[in-house]
Amino acid sequence: MSNSKRDIARAAYYEQIGRSHMAPLWESLHALVPPQPQPKAQPAIWKYEQIRPLVMQAGSVISAEEAVRRVLVLENPGLRGKSSITSTLYAGLQLILPGEIAPSHRHTQSALRFIVEGQGAWTAVDGERTTMHPGDFIITPSWTWHDHGNPLEADGGEPVVWLDGLDIPLLLQLDAGFAESYPEAVQPVTRPEGNSFARYGNNMVPVRHQPTGGSSPIFSYPYARTREALDQLYRHGELDPWDGVKLRYVNPATGGWPMPTMATFMQLLPAGFQGRTYRSTDATVYSVVEGRGTARIGEMQFQFEPRDIFVAPSWQPVQLACVEDAVLFSYSDRPVLSALNLLREERL
Amino acid sequence: MSNSKRDIARAAYYEQIGRSHMAPLWESLHALVPPQPQPKAQPAIWKYEQIRPLVMQAGSVISAEEAVRRVLVLENPGLRGKSSITSTLYAGLQLILPGEIAPSHRHTQSALRFIVEGQGAWTAVDGERTTMHPGDFIITPSWTWHDHGNPLEADGGEPVVWLDGLDIPLLLQLDAGFAESYPEAVQPVTRPEGNSFARYGNNMVPVRHQPTGGSSPIFSYPYARTREALDQLYRHGELDPWDGVKLRYVNPATGGWPMPTMATFMQLLPAGFQGRTYRSTDATVYSVVEGRGTARIGEMQFQFEPRDIFVAPSWQPVQLACVEDAVLFSYSDRPVLSALNLLREERL
Amino acid sequence: MSNSKRDIARAAYYEQIGRSHMAPLWESLHALVPPQPQPKAQPAIWKYEQIRPLVMQAGSVISAEEAVRRVLVLENPGLRGKSSITSTLYAGLQLILPGEIAPSHRHTQSALRFIVEGQGAWTAVDGERTTMHPGDFIITPSWTWHDHGNPLEADGGEPVVWLDGLDIPLLLQLDAGFAESYPEAVQPVTRPEGNSFARYGNNMVPVRHQPTGGSSPIFSYPYARTREALDQLYRHGELDPWDGVKLRYVNPATGGWPMPTMATFMQLLPAGFQGRTYRSTDATVYSVVEGRGTARIGEMQFQFEPRDIFVAPSWQPVQLACVEDAVLFSYSDRPVLSALNLLREERL
Amino acid sequence: MSNSKRDIARAAYYEQIGRSHMAPLWESLHALVPPQPQPKAQPAIWKYEQIRPLVMQAGSVISAEEAVRRVLVLENPGLRGKSSITSTLYAGLQLILPGEIAPSHRHTQSALRFIVEGQGAWTAVDGERTTMHPGDFIITPSWTWHDHGNPLEADGGEPVVWLDGLDIPLLLQLDAGFAESYPEAVQPVTRPEGNSFARYGNNMVPVRHQPTGGSSPIFSYPYARTREALDQLYRHGELDPWDGVKLRYVNPATGGWPMPTMATFMQLLPAGFQGRTYRSTDATVYSVVEGRGTARIGEMQFQFEPRDIFVAPSWQPVQLACVEDAVLFSYSDRPVLSALNLLREERL
Repeated sequence: MSNSKRDIARAAYYEQIGRSHMAPLWESLHALVPPQPQPKAQPAIWKYEQIRPLVMQAGSVISAEEAVRRVLVLENPGLRGKSSITSTLYAGLQLILPGEIAPSHRHTQSALRFIVEGQGAWTAVDGERTTMHPGDFIITPSWTWHDHGNPLEADGGEPVVWLDGLDIPLLLQLDAGFAESYPEAVQPVTRPEGNSFARYGNNMVPVRHQPTGGSSPIFSYPYARTREALDQLYRHGELDPWDGVKLRYVNPATGGWPMPTMATFMQLLPAGFQGRTYRSTDATVYSVVEGRGTARIGEMQFQFEPRDIFVAPSWQPVQLACVEDAVLFSYSDRPVLSALNLLREERL
Repeated sequence: MSNSKRDIARAAYYEQIGRSHMAPLWESLHALVPPQPQPKAQPAIWKYEQIRPLVMQAGSVISAEEAVRRVLVLENPGLRGKSSITSTLYAGLQLILPGEIAPSHRHTQSALRFIVEGQGAWTAVDGERTTMHPGDFIITPSWTWHDHGNPLEADGGEPVVWLDGLDIPLLLQLDAGFAESYPEAVQPVTRPEGNSFARYGNNMVPVRHQPTGGSSPIFSYPYARTREALDQLYRHGELDPWDGVKLRYVNPATGGWPMPTMATFMQLLPAGFQGRTYRSTDATVYSVVEGRGTARIGEMQFQFEPRDIFVAPSWQPVQLACVEDAVLFSYSDRPVLSALNLLREERL
Repeated sequence: MSNSKRDIARAAYYEQIGRSHMAPLWESLHALVPPQPQPKAQPAIWKYEQIRPLVMQAGSVISAEEAVRRVLVLENPGLRGKSSITSTLYAGLQLILPGEIAPSHRHTQSALRFIVEGQGAWTAVDGERTTMHPGDFIITPSWTWHDHGNPLEADGGEPVVWLDGLDIPLLLQLDAGFAESYPEAVQPVTRPEGNSFARYGNNMVPVRHQPTGGSSPIFSYPYARTREALDQLYRHGELDPWDGVKLRYVNPATGGWPMPTMATFMQLLPAGFQGRTYRSTDATVYSVVEGRGTARIGEMQFQFEPRDIFVAPSWQPVQLACVEDAVLFSYSDRPVLSALNLLREERL
Repeated sequence: MSNSKRDIARAAYYEQIGRSHMAPLWESLHALVPPQPQPKAQPAIWKYEQIRPLVMQAGSVISAEEAVRRVLVLENPGLRGKSSITSTLYAGLQLILPGEIAPSHRHTQSALRFIVEGQGAWTAVDGERTTMHPGDFIITPSWTWHDHGNPLEADGGEPVVWLDGLDIPLLLQLDAGFAESYPEAVQPVTRPEGNSFARYGNNMVPVRHQPTGGSSPIFSYPYARTREALDQLYRHGELDPWDGVKLRYVNPATGGWPMPTMATFMQLLPAGFQGRTYRSTDATVYSVVEGRGTARIGEMQFQFEPRDIFVAPSWQPVQLACVEDAVLFSYSDRPVLSALNLLREERL
């Protein structure tokens, strides 16, 4: 049979099997089982200087209460319309103005907040409030009631912006999302601020505590302590050629990740650091806390400054350098890859 | 500001932020964080009687070697063009004719084979071959070399059809797929058939074995033993109002799932069984081994017979009944939901 | 101060502090923290040919019911009066005659039975009976009701002898022993024989099973399957220079040990095997199932035959050899050492 | 047969089997498998006021270097001559004078130090030194090199006394003790003080850390933080009727115990606290940090003051009360019981 005859016969066959909801694997095998990851997500950066006015403008476009969450979603250029910064992760900049409240709800999506600008606003999680400061890392574990608020300007309130990181795209893919609203805008406060940290934050836990749910029982990791630890290790001579000085946040009751779907990290790159190249199957979102430098990701190169956000998709080579001391927060879907035995990394 | 004026202003704002790769969360929040799962996958059935001729016809459309894998993919009607039977799982019917070989390769996707029709073909995994019989459950763990073959007709070979279950859609979403071909069509046999089972299959393991990689060290679970266990438990009076008599396959070295991304089950429904309704966030693919009955899934109702395949998406109510003793094999993405603390079930 | 003056002063001081229940560490430090283990237990063997008449004689000395358990305890020559075969383990030979019953009780001590001679007697554990055959390995997990019985001679009953292995000395040391008697001599049978094995023995488990308590849900591991697995692996060319072909029994629901305090093993040494020397911090009791050979343990050398029992204390070098195919059952306190991170081994 | 004849016959039989190293279980079954724990250890207290002069006197009896460890062992009145405070645990008061050194060694026994009096001395563990302050809890994990020292009086050195807690009796029973001396009196310092805490103490860990060995990677838990956490929780209204406010120390890399064989706790009892009665199969040693009160243990009642040490054996009812705010440090063999599934507790 000639090739064209064969192709015609195959096409007819494909149509026939298509009517029974079947398709020929051999036409798509290579795309379905690629030799290495081919993410649709692209390396990208959001320069805070450019987007800050747009974020602030959102404050006049819609109220926090009407919006429920007044957030500008950072959409990966390779994933437009999908509210995704990577194939599994969501990132957004949330603005809350003095006197506003983002009403209470809960969902199976896990959420992290990384404070970018401003302070004094609060997040409440399961009855306990935490006051926000730049650089603080705060979690809202799956299915916990949470709301946010900001004091009146008269009481010292100021606009606060944070980076929201969620596993929204993953949960959509898994068809595992549930959500509901709290009957009131603000949930009652049942424990004083600092209670969770006092229970779990000092390398001790309540004697009868049984870990459940897979998320950390402390939900605020203040920047002051993180920064001090990084400094101290750097003074002690720690410096990894790929990572600089890099710590991961842990659930102190298990040593595991703070939440089951997202890993979070903070790293210090000293002035003049020229990092070596690294890649991994987890996709990572970076938020710059301090310092200026350069990130090479795949074919792209970005200059970063404080409050910029950039993203490295799966398996893209990443190389970090800086001209002044830099501190980078980052989050990724590493716990997912790791739990499924799919984490692969290369230090080049 | 009137509503229409407001809408125009917002549209202008959305376009402006869109140029910076940002989007307003409040327009899509409800879809991104739905009150409960809204899977695109639909309940569906493939009647083996109808599709068998098409499967056999594939044998003349393409050779196993040219196809690499001669498989008709079962595409969920809600996910056409995506080679997916659920949002995370792939299913296909693979045909191998006497004398054929499906060449050796490996990939990070995990694969299971459930033998539907014919016997005597073999699968080789990491140097050991297993002979196939209807009802056998065989695994190809992530990144293991594997090839399939069938003896010549003169040596008793006959067409063999099996159901392939893989986590292809999940790994595409996670950007975690790697693959490579073996330099030869067939990998060398380094261990006699039955070796893995002798090592791990009898509630004993080699004294120095250390579990690694998360997959079961036995890769064939013969139907004869499974069927006998179900029979015996039924004779002993086991009968769950939802499940009948239902066992899950385990990795005998850990008690966990045979592979990190897919759970597998076999259940016996005695003649006259009228199951109660159940739903869960794992999506499940069923393959009928024996018996005739009815499956109600969501709004749909299917009559099933031996070798039929049907699918229940996430959170769809499922109710099983049968007029004669029925045996159902099934697989789902439960280990993924479970590892990420996202498994939710309801027995109604 | 002269040495003798110093010694007198110290003696006075020691007496003084002794009155306050204190003692000088420096006088005993070396014995308390020795350079390597110095077990009081010695290598020893019990020749079954010699002790069998004494075991049988016990049948006329006391009835099973009066004795509660008619057992001759094998006392390590280095631990006389302590009912111990090693520092943590107990071993005894239990005899049950046709028509007898050993009444039902439970205790926190874990127990294993290894059938040495005779068949047809039964053990009941939590409502299910198991019939005994030589070479079978049967467990009675901590705090499970258990009783033993033997059919009347008229019904085919014959004297049955088994090796009891318990963690009695360990639980005495830990002050963790609890016990109570069942209100009746024999507990009611609530599940047919083979039920546990059907549920858990075939590399499958009931779909809703949650492991609890740390002990295996199957309580009989029949010799027929164990022997066949060893044979098959030997035919496949497995042979470890130290171990021969050696498997460990597992809890199929976890991959762990059958019980939290005792490990159990079965190994095949082919005719002519000259094993290399090994030592470990777990102390091991061996029971010979088949074959004749030699065991060198520390400074001792023993000729072994079927049904002989010998013991290797912690850290004593062990070397096994045989002139004909030999099969050895063994048990040790390895899970204890392992859980406490105290297991150390050397293959010389 | 009359009873006396029977007894004579049995005695003869017992002697006969005794020659084969066997003994009749039925004569000792009740003692070996008791209805509940019958610890030889007794409740006891050491009044620091009384023993302090003896501890200080040790400084003139022997030098730290000659003694290797200048420690007065607290011997349980029920276990004299066994260097044991409970069946598995050791306790001793160690004195180190200004200018002295306790030479470097390592052993498989795990050790904890709880600082009772004085400050400024140091412990070095695996190359890092920690300065001691009253109330600090410091660990020396199994098989880590460690030495202690105290600055010269001229440099501010003062006598320092701490409580040593070790698992010496347990390791003797398990025949699992290994030890060796370091070639020099003092091991080299390779990391600055505070390095381990900076790496692991702030709810973050180095990104590439893999937990090993089962012991905490931080080895000092300073009292300042512990005390502040207890205070804060008490101000927040925490108060358990049995425990007061009680935290357990954790290994921050796993959430588990700081060492595999010993649990440690700190609890605050507010003035006027009248605790309810509790018992458990772990035996516990208490060291009073602050406050005066009463401990009822079994049949005994003790008045406690700062620096007193008292002990509660397994399964003895314990009831604590105090007239002024009290803080109690304690350690027990709970991880051993827990790992072996032998922990049982009752809150009465």
